[in-house]
Amino acid sequence: MAELAQALLDLIHARYSPKAFSTRAIPEPVLTRMFEAARWAPSSYNRQPWRFLVTRRGTEAYDRLMSCLYEGNQVRAQGAPVLVLAVAVEADERGPNRYAWHDLGMACAFLTLAAVAHGVYPRFMAGFDKDQARRLFDIPETMAPSTVIVLGYPAENAPTPRVRRPLEEIVYEARWGEAFTPTWEEAPDST
Amino acid sequence: MAELAQALLDLIHARYSPKAFSTRAIPEPVLTRMFEAARWAPSSYNRQPWRFLVTRRGTEAYDRLMSCLYEGNQVRAQGAPVLVLAVAVEADERGPNRYAWHDLGMACAFLTLAAVAHGVYPRFMAGFDKDQARRLFDIPETMAPSTVIVLGYPAENAPTPRVRRPLEEIVYEARWGEAFTPTWEEAPDST
Repeated sequence: MAELAQALLDLIHARYSPKAFSTRAIPEPVLTRMFEAARWAPSSYNRQPWRFLVTRRGTEAYDRLMSCLYEGNQVRAQGAPVLVLAVAVEADERGPNRYAWHDLGMACAFLTLAAVAHGVYPRFMAGFDKDQARRLFDIPETMAPSTVIVLGYPAENAPTPRVRRPLEEIVYEARWGEAFTPTWEEAPDST
Repeated sequence: MAELAQALLDLIHARYSPKAFSTRAIPEPVLTRMFEAARWAPSSYNRQPWRFLVTRRGTEAYDRLMSCLYEGNQVRAQGAPVLVLAVAVEADERGPNRYAWHDLGMACAFLTLAAVAHGVYPRFMAGFDKDQARRLFDIPETMAPSTVIVLGYPAENAPTPRVRRPLEEIVYEARWGEAFTPTWEEAPDST
């Protein structure tokens, strides 16, 4: 269990969003497993406010989705075997869903880690024409295009080093702004 | 790599949101690693629109956060060693962030899988008084309390069986509403 935990954290540390993709195809069972992972994400009241539209290179649907991306993103996505439109279900039979984007994000994160475990690195693109995507793919009014997920194998020599705020800036303890103290090793007397 | 992918999918299938928690403490390095996993989630323009406020059982901060939960949730959270207030940064120096909740969801999902790999099962609670939480913890106006994350070890004999929509209902191919065909096994001639 601890080994898996370490392997997972290593995976999370190694993950990045490629700026260029190889044309290498994604095996079908890998693609299926990515969506299977997304499917089992938690969601408020189990509303599962996520939908995914898959398009493959060489099809009209792919070209249409590609045409929605802003120019710089089209360059980055070029050649990727699969583009996915991720859609948030903003209202359902229970009414408006305040957690639609939050829970879609959770499903996308599960998808991401399942993908990376297979060597597939997703890049999430927010920069696309959402109205055009809605029109071209007849997205219902109660739903909202959220991201285009570019899926494929990286074609970069070396990823740009990634940066994040330190833990102390994002995790507080007891009071707002009071830094949480990270502890990386088990105290000797507690093992 | 394929082994890790399978172990991760097994973890995702095994994950659930406990309805009762043991009082067993979470080792500090496990807690640290959960937030470390969250820290490295992807986000739009790397804005990292997530903040976490940790409270521990036996402290005033914990009791205050517990008091924000709606009654049924207080019962479920009872005894859990840690309650976390997850906060979305809805606006920053770049302006309003449309992806704040989406990206907070991603960070929470990374946290979830890191936790489950250590046997800690989070339960996300949307049912709490967000205004009260904001007041009690001085959450800045540009940020929004999103969920209370209950962290601990499950204290249930058997989790309630979980259900999800079938893949075909949430993943479409090429056209909206046209089911994606899952493929679980590699075709014999492609191996």
